[in-house]
Amino acid sequence: MGDARRFLTIDGEFQMIHGRLTQATIAYETLGELNEAKDNAVLILTGLSASAHVASNEEDRTAGWWEDVVGPGKPIDTHRYFVICICSLGSFFGSTCPASTDPNTGDSYRLSFPVLTLEDVAHGAKCVVDYLEISRLHSVVGASMGGMSTLAFALMYPSAAHSMLNISAGANSQPFGIALRSLQRELVCNDPKWLNGEYPFDEQPQEGMRLARKLGMISYRSAQEWRDRFGRERVTDDDALGHSNPFGMHFEIESYLSSRARSFMDAFDANCYLYLSRAIDLFDAADHGGSLQLAINKLGIERATVLGVQSDFLFLPDQQRELKNAMSSADIEVDFEILDSIQGHDSFLVDMNRFRPAISRHFNYES
Amino acid sequence: MGDARRFLTIDGEFQMIHGRLTQATIAYETLGELNEAKDNAVLILTGLSASAHVASNEEDRTAGWWEDVVGPGKPIDTHRYFVICICSLGSFFGSTCPASTDPNTGDSYRLSFPVLTLEDVAHGAKCVVDYLEISRLHSVVGASMGGMSTLAFALMYPSAAHSMLNISAGANSQPFGIALRSLQRELVCNDPKWLNGEYPFDEQPQEGMRLARKLGMISYRSAQEWRDRFGRERVTDDDALGHSNPFGMHFEIESYLSSRARSFMDAFDANCYLYLSRAIDLFDAADHGGSLQLAINKLGIERATVLGVQSDFLFLPDQQRELKNAMSSADIEVDFEILDSIQGHDSFLVDMNRFRPAISRHFNYES
Repeated sequence: MGDARRFLTIDGEFQMIHGRLTQATIAYETLGELNEAKDNAVLILTGLSASAHVASNEEDRTAGWWEDVVGPGKPIDTHRYFVICICSLGSFFGSTCPASTDPNTGDSYRLSFPVLTLEDVAHGAKCVVDYLEISRLHSVVGASMGGMSTLAFALMYPSAAHSMLNISAGANSQPFGIALRSLQRELVCNDPKWLNGEYPFDEQPQEGMRLARKLGMISYRSAQEWRDRFGRERVTDDDALGHSNPFGMHFEIESYLSSRARSFMDAFDANCYLYLSRAIDLFDAADHGGSLQLAINKLGIERATVLGVQSDFLFLPDQQRELKNAMSSADIEVDFEILDSIQGHDSFLVDMNRFRPAISRHFNYES
Repeated sequence: MGDARRFLTIDGEFQMIHGRLTQATIAYETLGELNEAKDNAVLILTGLSASAHVASNEEDRTAGWWEDVVGPGKPIDTHRYFVICICSLGSFFGSTCPASTDPNTGDSYRLSFPVLTLEDVAHGAKCVVDYLEISRLHSVVGASMGGMSTLAFALMYPSAAHSMLNISAGANSQPFGIALRSLQRELVCNDPKWLNGEYPFDEQPQEGMRLARKLGMISYRSAQEWRDRFGRERVTDDDALGHSNPFGMHFEIESYLSSRARSFMDAFDANCYLYLSRAIDLFDAADHGGSLQLAINKLGIERATVLGVQSDFLFLPDQQRELKNAMSSADIEVDFEILDSIQGHDSFLVDMNRFRPAISRHFNYES
């Protein structure tokens, strides 16, 4: 298992909306080849917990987080496109983040890291695009937080992308999602081991992270899917029954959530999680223009594909519809679809039968 | 503020599904007058956090939890009906519960209280009905957990009720709801002050209860309602901004949830909450007959009203539809409606414009 990441270190100061960093680093991976005209580049911005490893490649043969979507002959075809996937600024997977060392102090940033916004994430991505000397991307692509980041990118750099593929996101965060993320952050900060962000890096507030992830798992999927998958199956493994706690696991769904929540807590830094989670809440495309419509009017893209999922209750179909309507009013050509997936917000990661054709359409577009 | 509760103490042993109690007490309130034929009684079973105080009356003039539905001239008209509202066995508001003293030991039950089921709740209610010498109720009524308890009641005592009004419930708990309740219980049990149930009663695990309630608030309402109510309003009160925690409250929705969560934690015992929450997960009408249909075939009611809410994602409309279909197949006359309320699972407490007519229909039925 190799490492396919590249690291762009930005000399001098990296200006953020609410502060600045010195010598920020952005990690990224690329697949395919940039053509001579440099007009076949596709920029992928990720969700909260994804790394830059979007798909397997020669240097890192492990499966990526969108393995079924990106690769030779796949909907984002690396025979045709030069794919760049960015590790978000603030994320734990290689870019400068609250767990990084501040060169000005020699200590980790921790909570001295400036308040992170998705505009800063987009700014980091733009530095990579500029470094690669790509003046206009074929597409900027993102789902969930990544979908919001693509909006931030296109709002800040109107001429930088020809088209956008925006999946299961919205023009801003709505109170239901804010409430869930706020509670998740509270679960982390309430863990006595969080220590106001000063925990030793090898002693993460694992309990708080585990609970936050469990709540995330619940909100990322849908009631219908779990009904079909788990029903009322009881846990049969005696070890899993958790007899030490009489209010513990009786049902398969509880066991499933527990095992998934544990796997996440080993892989992410708590402060990074808190910063990214808050960045999602803070995003509002309307900040770029006085109203959503005025902001979208300034988008420089020529066409967009906006996808959502019927069973998503974290980013409701109404939010994708709102985005599509604003784009249409701004004379952007929009392909819009709400898919019938039952897997909720996470459908773009799992319901390949529905998502692959919808994504392919964006890349096989003929004007 | 008086106390309108009556207390029925059951001599000898009270048999539960998973154990027994000695000298159990069931608290209840009544409104209206039982007629001579004793055929105008309406039994109301409550949701998890409600008391027997369903509506104001001469002895307790404070508003009840269903003040708009129960009273003179209201949909459940106390001029016509004799209304009995039961404090569920295991609940903290007057019936025997984990916080009560076990007469056999002189100590509080705490976790020695038998595993509670909704069948036990129904059994407690039946004791009151028998004590009042009512051989057949006009209706048994319940919403949410109360709706499941009405099913338990009618399955265990098939001839005890003529009709049923079942609101925002289902024939069993589904994995999405189980997952949420499981996480809520975990939040309580993870509070160091829970002490495996041995906390002093005046030192409740308030932090865990507060977090559990916050999660409950999120799941009881709907994304659409909050979007309409709160949008992206920021908190303006500087005191509420929680500057001690940089990941704390920025948005009105967060402030709203915090204040509501605090009000609950003062009013309920943690162990009682855990027992009732698990009882909801454990309920499955199919346990009474080998399958849901076989169980429902044994219901002795002649007609039912089954109501649900489009935006409820804790008890999905599919669950009310399933219940209605099983009842119809069992030749029970069913009035079925999924209301367009946007307030989610809690709509029956707040969307009176839709619920009052639907409930009235049940009580103005003419065959």
